[in-house]
Amino acid sequence: MKGQELDIEQYRLTEEPFYEEVNGEIGLVTIASKSKMPVMLKGPTGCGKTRFVQHMAYKLGRPLITVACHEDLTASDLVGRYLLKGEETVWVDGPLTLGVKHGAIVYLDEIVEARKDTTVIVHPLSDDRRFLPIEKRGQMIEAVDDFMLVISYNPGYQSVLKELKQSTKQRFMAIEFTYPPADIEMRIIEKEAKVTKEIAQKLVKLGDKVRNLRNHGLEEGVSTRLLIYAGTLIQQGVPSEKACEAAVIRPITDDPDMHRSIQELVKAIF
Amino acid sequence: MKGQELDIEQYRLTEEPFYEEVNGEIGLVTIASKSKMPVMLKGPTGCGKTRFVQHMAYKLGRPLITVACHEDLTASDLVGRYLLKGEETVWVDGPLTLGVKHGAIVYLDEIVEARKDTTVIVHPLSDDRRFLPIEKRGQMIEAVDDFMLVISYNPGYQSVLKELKQSTKQRFMAIEFTYPPADIEMRIIEKEAKVTKEIAQKLVKLGDKVRNLRNHGLEEGVSTRLLIYAGTLIQQGVPSEKACEAAVIRPITDDPDMHRSIQELVKAIF
Amino acid sequence: MKGQELDIEQYRLTEEPFYEEVNGEIGLVTIASKSKMPVMLKGPTGCGKTRFVQHMAYKLGRPLITVACHEDLTASDLVGRYLLKGEETVWVDGPLTLGVKHGAIVYLDEIVEARKDTTVIVHPLSDDRRFLPIEKRGQMIEAVDDFMLVISYNPGYQSVLKELKQSTKQRFMAIEFTYPPADIEMRIIEKEAKVTKEIAQKLVKLGDKVRNLRNHGLEEGVSTRLLIYAGTLIQQGVPSEKACEAAVIRPITDDPDMHRSIQELVKAIF
Amino acid sequence: MKGQELDIEQYRLTEEPFYEEVNGEIGLVTIASKSKMPVMLKGPTGCGKTRFVQHMAYKLGRPLITVACHEDLTASDLVGRYLLKGEETVWVDGPLTLGVKHGAIVYLDEIVEARKDTTVIVHPLSDDRRFLPIEKRGQMIEAVDDFMLVISYNPGYQSVLKELKQSTKQRFMAIEFTYPPADIEMRIIEKEAKVTKEIAQKLVKLGDKVRNLRNHGLEEGVSTRLLIYAGTLIQQGVPSEKACEAAVIRPITDDPDMHRSIQELVKAIF
Amino acid sequence: MKGQELDIEQYRLTEEPFYEEVNGEIGLVTIASKSKMPVMLKGPTGCGKTRFVQHMAYKLGRPLITVACHEDLTASDLVGRYLLKGEETVWVDGPLTLGVKHGAIVYLDEIVEARKDTTVIVHPLSDDRRFLPIEKRGQMIEAVDDFMLVISYNPGYQSVLKELKQSTKQRFMAIEFTYPPADIEMRIIEKEAKVTKEIAQKLVKLGDKVRNLRNHGLEEGVSTRLLIYAGTLIQQGVPSEKACEAAVIRPITDDPDMHRSIQELVKAIF
Amino acid sequence: MKGQELDIEQYRLTEEPFYEEVNGEIGLVTIASKSKMPVMLKGPTGCGKTRFVQHMAYKLGRPLITVACHEDLTASDLVGRYLLKGEETVWVDGPLTLGVKHGAIVYLDEIVEARKDTTVIVHPLSDDRRFLPIEKRGQMIEAVDDFMLVISYNPGYQSVLKELKQSTKQRFMAIEFTYPPADIEMRIIEKEAKVTKEIAQKLVKLGDKVRNLRNHGLEEGVSTRLLIYAGTLIQQGVPSEKACEAAVIRPITDDPDMHRSIQELVKAIF
Repeated sequence: MKGQELDIEQYRLTEEPFYEEVNGEIGLVTIASKSKMPVMLKGPTGCGKTRFVQHMAYKLGRPLITVACHEDLTASDLVGRYLLKGEETVWVDGPLTLGVKHGAIVYLDEIVEARKDTTVIVHPLSDDRRFLPIEKRGQMIEAVDDFMLVISYNPGYQSVLKELKQSTKQRFMAIEFTYPPADIEMRIIEKEAKVTKEIAQKLVKLGDKVRNLRNHGLEEGVSTRLLIYAGTLIQQGVPSEKACEAAVIRPITDDPDMHRSIQELVKAIF
Repeated sequence: MKGQELDIEQYRLTEEPFYEEVNGEIGLVTIASKSKMPVMLKGPTGCGKTRFVQHMAYKLGRPLITVACHEDLTASDLVGRYLLKGEETVWVDGPLTLGVKHGAIVYLDEIVEARKDTTVIVHPLSDDRRFLPIEKRGQMIEAVDDFMLVISYNPGYQSVLKELKQSTKQRFMAIEFTYPPADIEMRIIEKEAKVTKEIAQKLVKLGDKVRNLRNHGLEEGVSTRLLIYAGTLIQQGVPSEKACEAAVIRPITDDPDMHRSIQELVKAIF
Repeated sequence: MKGQELDIEQYRLTEEPFYEEVNGEIGLVTIASKSKMPVMLKGPTGCGKTRFVQHMAYKLGRPLITVACHEDLTASDLVGRYLLKGEETVWVDGPLTLGVKHGAIVYLDEIVEARKDTTVIVHPLSDDRRFLPIEKRGQMIEAVDDFMLVISYNPGYQSVLKELKQSTKQRFMAIEFTYPPADIEMRIIEKEAKVTKEIAQKLVKLGDKVRNLRNHGLEEGVSTRLLIYAGTLIQQGVPSEKACEAAVIRPITDDPDMHRSIQELVKAIF
Repeated sequence: MKGQELDIEQYRLTEEPFYEEVNGEIGLVTIASKSKMPVMLKGPTGCGKTRFVQHMAYKLGRPLITVACHEDLTASDLVGRYLLKGEETVWVDGPLTLGVKHGAIVYLDEIVEARKDTTVIVHPLSDDRRFLPIEKRGQMIEAVDDFMLVISYNPGYQSVLKELKQSTKQRFMAIEFTYPPADIEMRIIEKEAKVTKEIAQKLVKLGDKVRNLRNHGLEEGVSTRLLIYAGTLIQQGVPSEKACEAAVIRPITDDPDMHRSIQELVKAIF
Repeated sequence: MKGQELDIEQYRLTEEPFYEEVNGEIGLVTIASKSKMPVMLKGPTGCGKTRFVQHMAYKLGRPLITVACHEDLTASDLVGRYLLKGEETVWVDGPLTLGVKHGAIVYLDEIVEARKDTTVIVHPLSDDRRFLPIEKRGQMIEAVDDFMLVISYNPGYQSVLKELKQSTKQRFMAIEFTYPPADIEMRIIEKEAKVTKEIAQKLVKLGDKVRNLRNHGLEEGVSTRLLIYAGTLIQQGVPSEKACEAAVIRPITDDPDMHRSIQELVKAIF
Repeated sequence: MKGQELDIEQYRLTEEPFYEEVNGEIGLVTIASKSKMPVMLKGPTGCGKTRFVQHMAYKLGRPLITVACHEDLTASDLVGRYLLKGEETVWVDGPLTLGVKHGAIVYLDEIVEARKDTTVIVHPLSDDRRFLPIEKRGQMIEAVDDFMLVISYNPGYQSVLKELKQSTKQRFMAIEFTYPPADIEMRIIEKEAKVTKEIAQKLVKLGDKVRNLRNHGLEEGVSTRLLIYAGTLIQQGVPSEKACEAAVIRPITDDPDMHRSIQELVKAIF
């Protein structure tokens, strides 16, 4: 466990992740990082929140520790726990403690999915106290200056059981994310799927049409990621209809009618 | 574990936390502390309950141990537990035991969120018996004179499942908190966000208008903390509309109509 | 663990707790203690059940072990468990076993809140068998003659899920508790809050009026304890309206209309 | 653990428990014991099922191991478990294993309350296989000839969640219990409460009247045990109305109307 | 643990269990055993499924490991677990692993009652892969040729929560069981209860009539086992009405009307 | 644990599993494997998803690790855990970690059945990050190039509680599976059940008719596997009606009417 001081380095990004700014969000989060203000990213699946955080971590030169939250995530999973090593009990810092000590950005993805103790553990870290109580060790750790807390939240998942409490929400500056504008999304697809500008344009058009179906029975729009998948398949020689079937339609809907509607869109565009 | 006697010192506040009294609450809690009466703070999120307790702890010269309660908080988390250290089992005091022994103010924030065993553990501490049974050690610890129990409770969160029992409530003197009056809130924002009096005034006005929306579909009013965030962003050069968007509107609502209404308010004021 | 035989002494009351008899309950419980009959105390919060048990324990010269029951209280919490001490596993008696062995009064407060295994563990102790099976040790302990089981039960908390089973209820002699009569309650307040007879009288009158509101939307009446709190605040110089606000109204209701009604009562009386 | 062979002796009854036969049940259970047929006792609380089993155990000269079942009772609680003793793990037989090995009557009281694994563990013991699988040790123990399984079941507690499965029920011969006939109950009360025949008669009459109220809103009739309590109080000098109040009315009902009705019955009889 | 190889022998039947074939089921299961096809036995309680499996195990000369499934049965209970023995951790095979290694018939009785991980663990064992993954040891064990999986399932217990998934059901050949035909059931009762042919005939007639009541409010018909119990009581001298009361009526119904109806049947037949 | 590097070899298929391609799925998944795109297989029970994955694993020359997901499957079951071995705690890789390190195809069968932490653990593995966080060891493992993630999903099991989240779905390229076309299914049955072409044809016809009943009350169609079972029984000499009864009708329905309908189909075809 001696080497743990070094561990934080594996969380440091070595290459600049590609990110196209949409609406001044880089400036806002830079200010938040200086003012030690915690940040909440709101928006649907696959519209670039994770990539944005990676970009900011690189830009601010801080390690990035990402935790995908889920129903069984407890406070101990974040803070740390005692583990038995041979004859001794050794304390092992959790990802949040690691970040608090070493000045990382800790990104709690979809925090609303976590157990309630997890939500509450971030409270004293997200007001002017900025400390993390480690109750099992009877300690309070003050966050170093570079520590920054970022959470994400998808307002589209409405549920009484999984609502972020106001006493949590009101601790964060919030930035709204949505799908990127056409020109930016096109550049992203071109770059990541290595397709021609023309195909990228068609995929962006398809994405736009499919997202409009959200008001007509589709649960959620298609993510940029899936459009990149479709581009990749096309670039590898798969016919575009088959590629869109496998990478766009099948992943987002099980409904035969919706399936046909999107197939029509694909035919019309390609 | 030898050094634990010293641990309590890390809970002592070294600087006076800024607090503006509203309605004689400092006097009441001072008397309660002398009369060994436990205190319940009632009120919405972000209206200054935590800051008030910090202020009282400083004023009374006692350490402050804060526990943010949550669904998975058990009595053992408060009282303490045995931990395996190498070949020996060592008892580690929990935050409540620490406070009972060393005369701290123990602040159980949103106690109604905790598991029921947690609620009940404070019963013998909150009547004239003033002892803490540590069943796992077969001990009863009498609280030292300076020990004081403070709990908070948000009546706005109404729920059958999460109701404080009358047998708990009727053990506490209670003080109602609400958002601070305009002049006091303005001074707080000026001081903490380092903005001009004029901007502070506008933010207070915005806060007031937004809080009135609570009767028109807004779940909870905006906290003073968020108004300070908005001030901070403005002070760092963010245009006021964008600052209010990020620090006031996005954190408190996901509803597009409510969003527009508050945007209108921002436009009208700034 | 050698010294555990002595532990029971810490449960012995050294001073006579003040208690005013209401309706022959001291005689009845004295007979029950001689006849080895278990006793159930029925009644609302804060009307003196705990104090009565303390009084009886002192009078009968027996140690008193009180357990506040809650949803997570298991049979093991009462009976005892094995704990790892260094290299050995040591059995530690729980509070019930302690009482059964050393002839204490064991008082299970609000037993209906406990888990079901806890309710059932008292069955063989509360009929003529009077033994406690300690299944983990493969033992049956016969209760010594002085052991006495007392439980409390608040019929006001009606709930299908939290109903004491008839097979449990029908093992206990039962005594009904209610708020003390005016003259007795007055003497209690005078003594405990150190206020004048006149103020005590006014507080009793307020208590009486507030308790009548139970049929008009108040969940439960005000306890004697809260009236003592109000008296204490007044005795310390707090104006009586403010004292009643903090010690009577805020603790028992969150409802603004009920709040105003009780404020009117306070104004009328003081 | 060496001495465990002797432990079974503590479960042997040394005095004949008083029991008045009602309807040939002693003969039936004697035959069942010879034919290795498991037995189910059906009937309400406090009508003598436990006493009957004690009587049969004495009569058949077998140890009696009683387990009061509850929601948290697991198969391991019955079968046994490994415990850590110093440096070694030692297997400790549970009450069922003890009975299976040493030929005891094992009485599972209110088996329907137990967890489902507990119900199922008795299946291979209650058909012609008569063995107990101890899965944690990879063993199957054949029951010795004298082992006998008795369960109790209260059909009055109707609940979808707590229904004994037909695949369990159909493994047992069943005997119905109800309150004893007047003459037998009178002799029981006389003997146990040490009251005169006249008082015993009055209490039996009261019992009969109260039991008739079951069709008029009373959850369950009064048990013989409570009538004995009332007799005991009267024998100790408590006036009969007060004695019936404490020992009969308060334990069985919280309803003021029912309370008054039974008070009238008491007045009419005494 | 060395001797565990021998343990499997205790699961081998040494005497041929009495079984009367009804409809070619012996042939079908013999083929299934050769073709390594898993088998599902469908049918109500007590109609001979368990006996049939015992018979097949004897006939095929394979050990039989029976597991009565229940709500708390986990995959680890079947597969095995690590246990601490002195200073070492030792792996102990569960019943399923034992059977897979040593070529036993493993009979999972009422598998639908088990936890879902238990159902899924048998999937790779019940298709052509025939292996058991032991995830805790990072191993995959291939079943030896003689291993055979048999499950039972009672379609009468309809419940949304306890429905065997199609992906499980469609892995098994299925045989329907019902109560045996009159002549076969008569021979069974004669043999097992040692009664005359005449009494056996009457009991079979009673069984038939009672089973017809299933369409008139009876939850499930009477099992052959209970008819054998009634015969045994009669053979021991209990009058036939009393014997049927104890062995047939009381175990299968709590309803007074149904009780009377069956009593009438008994009177008419005997 | 030294030998664990070798363990992965036991997951390598040594013979080519028989698989008939239906609609270009082999090509698509080959491209996905090259492009490091995770794959989701959608479709009903028993239509060949598992066999297809085996085939692809053989074809791509990679080990195949299959995990049948279920309600109690946790992230630790997939990632690994610390186990106590004698005096030391040893980390044991779970199946997912094994696959990530050694370049296996990890197939999570019916992932929607797993606990939510399991679903979330695959997120960073299924986007361009391709790493697996092992929080208990404070490590992040980057997947080797050959690692491929495949999940299956049955859209027919509709349930609010068991819905794959869009944020999970939108990480996978998806391929739809359904029952194989008649000619292919015939060849499969012929080969696996070793029956004549004529019988295989009849079984395919029966399968087709039964699957049409899905719109008339049948929960799910009959799988190819069950048709192979029926063929096997026929090949072993079981009359075709009896074989279809045992291998087709009984496993898929408990409903007497549906039973009769399918019996009619069998009679008409054979």
